[in-house]
Parts: sequence; C-alpha cells; structure tokens
Amino acid sequence: MAKFRFTVEYDGGAFVGWQRQDNGPSVQAALEEAVKGFCGEDAVVYGAGRTDAGVHALGQVAHVTLAKDWPSDTVMHALNHHLNHVAVAVLDCRPVDEDFHARFSATGRKYLYRIINRRAPLTVDRGLAWRVPQPLDEQAMQRAARHLLGKHDFTTFRASQCQAKSPVKTLDRLDVERAGEEIRIYAEARSFLHNQVRAMVGSLKYVGQGKWRADDLKAALEACDRTRCGATAPADGLYLTAVDY
Amino acid sequence: MAKFRFTVEYDGGAFVGWQRQDNGPSVQAALEEAVKGFCGEDAVVYGAGRTDAGVHALGQVAHVTLAKDWPSDTVMHALNHHLNHVAVAVLDCRPVDEDFHARFSATGRKYLYRIINRRAPLTVDRGLAWRVPQPLDEQAMQRAARHLLGKHDFTTFRASQCQAKSPVKTLDRLDVERAGEEIRIYAEARSFLHNQVRAMVGSLKYVGQGKWRADDLKAALEACDRTRCGATAPADGLYLTAVDY
Repeated sequence: MAKFRFTVEYDGGAFVGWQRQDNGPSVQAALEEAVKGFCGEDAVVYGAGRTDAGVHALGQVAHVTLAKDWPSDTVMHALNHHLNHVAVAVLDCRPVDEDFHARFSATGRKYLYRIINRRAPLTVDRGLAWRVPQPLDEQAMQRAARHLLGKHDFTTFRASQCQAKSPVKTLDRLDVERAGEEIRIYAEARSFLHNQVRAMVGSLKYVGQGKWRADDLKAALEACDRTRCGATAPADGLYLTAVDY
Repeated sequence: MAKFRFTVEYDGGAFVGWQRQDNGPSVQAALEEAVKGFCGEDAVVYGAGRTDAGVHALGQVAHVTLAKDWPSDTVMHALNHHLNHVAVAVLDCRPVDEDFHARFSATGRKYLYRIINRRAPLTVDRGLAWRVPQPLDEQAMQRAARHLLGKHDFTTFRASQCQAKSPVKTLDRLDVERAGEEIRIYAEARSFLHNQVRAMVGSLKYVGQGKWRADDLKAALEACDRTRCGATAPADGLYLTAVDY
C-alpha cells in the first residue's frame, strides 16, 4: 500500500463540484476514473476542499491510497494522460505517510475571488471571474473587510445546506486589491463554512458600490442571520489557491 | 454620417480570425451583425489588426461609419447587447474624424504572448496560453531577443501567405518576463508581418530550451529564409493588447 498526495488544478465550469454526485461530472469522479484507467483500482480520492459547482482550483490538494508503490512521477503523468479530455490537471504528486489526510490534516485554506469591474461583458475571462458593472471602491471594501477578520460566529455568511458543526470560524486574511479593472479578494482561514467566501464577497460588493457602509457589514456579521447577508457572489470568480498542512 | 472608433476584446478560440471568411464565424462578421441588429445598417467594420484563427485581443481597435450620429454610449451598449451570445465585447466607443481609419491610421501595434512553462496540461488557461513542458531559460530568451530589435528584413519570420509589400519591419520591443510558471513575451512595432510574433516566439522557445544559442537566432534572422525559423508558436497564447494612433 502507498499513499500519494496531489496538487490539483481545475476549471470548475464543467463540473457539478469537487464531490462525486449523481447529477453530473465531478472533479473527484474524474480523478477516480483516471486512477482506475492508470492502475485498474477502484480507489477513493479525498480532497481538502469540497468546492461547489463552477468553483475553480489552482491548488486543491487530494490524496489516494494505491495497492502498489509507484514512482510519484509515474502516477502524475499517468493521471494527466487519463485526464486529457477534461479540464483537470495534477500539478505535482508525492508519497505521504499513512496518517496524512487531505481534508482532516489541512491546517489552512486559501481562496482568491476575481471580480472584473466593468460594464462590458467578459470574453477571455468568461466563466473565470465575476463581472460587476457598478464602479466599486476597493479601498472602502478593504476597510470594511477588517470587521470580518478574527474569530466570529459567521452564521450570516453560511449557506443553508452547510454541514459544519459550528458556525464559529477564525478568518486570518481578507484583503481587497485592485489592478486596473480587476479586483482580487484574498481569503484565508483554517476552514470556511459552506459558501462563506462567496457570501462575504457578495456583501463586500455592496460596500464597494456604496449600498452598504462598513458599519452595515459589521452589523450584518453581528446579527448572525443569513437574511442579512448580501447576495452571494457567483461561483465563476472563486478559486481554491492553496491548502496548508 | 458619423464615424465611431471601438476598442474590442475577444476570445479568438471560437473564430476563424478577425477577417470575414466563408469557412466560419469571424470577429468582423460578429461585429457587423451586431451593427445590423442595432441600427439595421449593412456597415463594414474595419479592424487595426487582422488576427488569425485562435488569436485573442484585449485591445483591438475598429471603426465603423453609420448613417446617424448616435451617442457613443448607446452604440457601445447596443453592440454588447447584440454580441451577448459570442465572446466579443466592445470596451469603449467614441466618435472620430472622417479621416480616421483603424488600420491605416495606426502607428503601433502591441502584442502579448503567454507561455505556461510546465509539464501538466492546462485547465483554466486552456486555449488562452501555450503550454511548453521543457524548462525554459527566460533570461537566455531575453538576451537573444535583443538581436531581433530594430529594423531588419524579417523574411525568416514571415508566413508564406503574408501579403505585406516589404519584409522589412522595425521591431521596437521584444521583452521576455517570467512570473512563476508563466512567461510573458511583449512585442511592439508599427506593424508586423503575417505570423511574425508567433514565428519569433517559436524561435525564442528554441533558445529557452537550449536547442538554439542567441547566435543561432541572429543567424536565422540574417539568413532571410523561412525554413530557418523555429516551429511557429500556436495561436492560443497570442493577444493583440493595444493599437497606437
């Protein structure tokens, strides 16, 4: 038996999400089929973050246990060969100890959210960012974002289907940066509630367009009430960029 | 009569190129159909650069003459509305003098070429960059690129179907920069020969992988012989970024 850890990149646009589901192609199933194509084994591939439909990853981390101890490079190239027809790629592969678990060993998740702030529709970035036509004040968004940093009950920013035991999370980073017409929001935490990043981005957008002041964001957080959240940002702009262990 | 100048962005992947052709959808035809949808006129849309199939634009410039003097914003939003089903967007629109011509008035063209230098297949950048698996030395590429700067006979880097009267062009910029696994090549000139940027990039890739030295690039240029060019880089990575007037 040998356990391997991968870094996985994917365009989430063609998938129902990371997790294997009955209603369409998932990233997990694509990887499991690639494993089967490579070595014939029906192995489960576990991921660090169960990204939703349409959400992308630049640095998802996954693991799989195989019967035979293959060279890591062989595993990586074989998986990429079998993934050739889908927008999923294994960026690296290395052996890990038996007690490593992509999801439960993770100590931090990093997300990026891309907004293209312009009136014109997207072309090369279609499906890869959220177009927001209203002019956004990224400095107001950055100032407001500080209210969400630290340990809080994030019930306001939680999807109704969230399965986490507790709504209390510690947000380590929430930064808003602009480069030309693109606004990039960086979020880091040990773990997030379901839809938390997209819900926070949707509320920050309200601040950016002047619909909310920073205090409104603070009040929404403190209300611990999902109905006080801004409209959740679409999946298109969200990327799982890295997982820490 | 009123003449309008647009900045146009597009994902070239779905098009046979800028120019209207019989064998498939072109960017020019998409814009002309949008003009027709907006005001009913059969107007010709002229572009600054006739990009090939698969080549993208972030800042193509085009013009059109319409019978009525509409507000620029009306033209822009109407065209984007009618372009809604294709990956073409009008980023800005303004009135120009009667003697302005997108192609013939242009005094400079700027291109970007994106290489993703890694073994793993592309996912989010599929169709939007050239994946080169061999490790590339971008500093060697940058040093070699200097040999192409200035006024030369670029016959070596010219497509057989090129219609330019003279193969002599003046290359004002050719810079190679790396950011992580991405290598960006910036090329600027008053005008380029057909396929010139992709041919230069293909030869610089030879230098980057150590197949050619800088002197080999110089010798290829001086040979004025198309058979001495490196394999032409694919359209996927090429972007027309700006046009000067």
